[in-house]
Amino acid sequence: MDFYNVLRMGHRPERDKRVTTHVALTSRAFGAKKMYLHRSDSRVIETINNVVSKFGGDFTVETTTNPKKTIKEWDGKIMHLTMFGLPIDDKLVEIKNVKEPILVVVGAEKVPPWVFEYSDFNIAIGSQPHSEVSALAIALSKLNEDSYNQNFEGPIQVIPSGERRNMVDISKSED
Amino acid sequence: MDFYNVLRMGHRPERDKRVTTHVALTSRAFGAKKMYLHRSDSRVIETINNVVSKFGGDFTVETTTNPKKTIKEWDGKIMHLTMFGLPIDDKLVEIKNVKEPILVVVGAEKVPPWVFEYSDFNIAIGSQPHSEVSALAIALSKLNEDSYNQNFEGPIQVIPSGERRNMVDISKSED
Repeated sequence: MDFYNVLRMGHRPERDKRVTTHVALTSRAFGAKKMYLHRSDSRVIETINNVVSKFGGDFTVETTTNPKKTIKEWDGKIMHLTMFGLPIDDKLVEIKNVKEPILVVVGAEKVPPWVFEYSDFNIAIGSQPHSEVSALAIALSKLNEDSYNQNFEGPIQVIPSGERRNMVDISKSED
Repeated sequence: MDFYNVLRMGHRPERDKRVTTHVALTSRAFGAKKMYLHRSDSRVIETINNVVSKFGGDFTVETTTNPKKTIKEWDGKIMHLTMFGLPIDDKLVEIKNVKEPILVVVGAEKVPPWVFEYSDFNIAIGSQPHSEVSALAIALSKLNEDSYNQNFEGPIQVIPSGERRNMVDISKSED
């Protein structure tokens, strides 16, 4: 596999602002380069840009008003995460052998049937209803060996601790 | 380990309804028996009870107004998920060797410092900001071998498919 991006479909700003923000943050923290956001929402983009400026990396959110076009124009494979799909563990070897970039598609509201048709892989993280956030985290952790252990070398660095909240702001400590 | 439950702290009904619902659904789908919900929200409970009645199992949401008491009275170990904690992979063997039930604590808003103090394990799924939903999914998938492959034998069963949305309602087909 080359790299992967995420497409968040069916975002409803009034309902999904926080869940979509979690989808974007999970995408970034688990190594995606970009999230395409179907339906614009400046609050989501602002939150993510704020995290990137503090914690580093070059993750971006790009608005799309036409997710079918985004999928059709994707130069690589499409992996749609859905509780109706095939078990990820049955397809993982095949997916990991893909040499092209992968677009991981997650829906908010029910996705239209063409998403199943246009996807190379319709993949389930279990067949129970749970969350596109947890499905994305599990899927990306299985695709990517570094998974959640990303270090973006941003100005703010967390110092892991068993006892307390501890972080340093490198931009300030260098003054 | 015996079993695990989840404590959702700091739920703000006006902001967190959907994310907390995802925390509860992830808890259920990844094998927890119960989620304690700090601050009551009948809409969350109604949504979860509806899923349980359709998809099976005996997962419940129990309201707590005093999470410190819930933690103090827990007969087992406390694992708090936080981006400030120690890497899960460094502590996993130790946690998996726990013979008592584990209460997994996830916060919505910033948790008070006593949560760190009262926890036996303050654990990070990476040191980047992402989501309590993804953190919970990764942690439970590592604690539990069956992880997301739960079958609750409810009236509605999903038929995994690479092509389409497909489920059967056993309660109806038996007529």
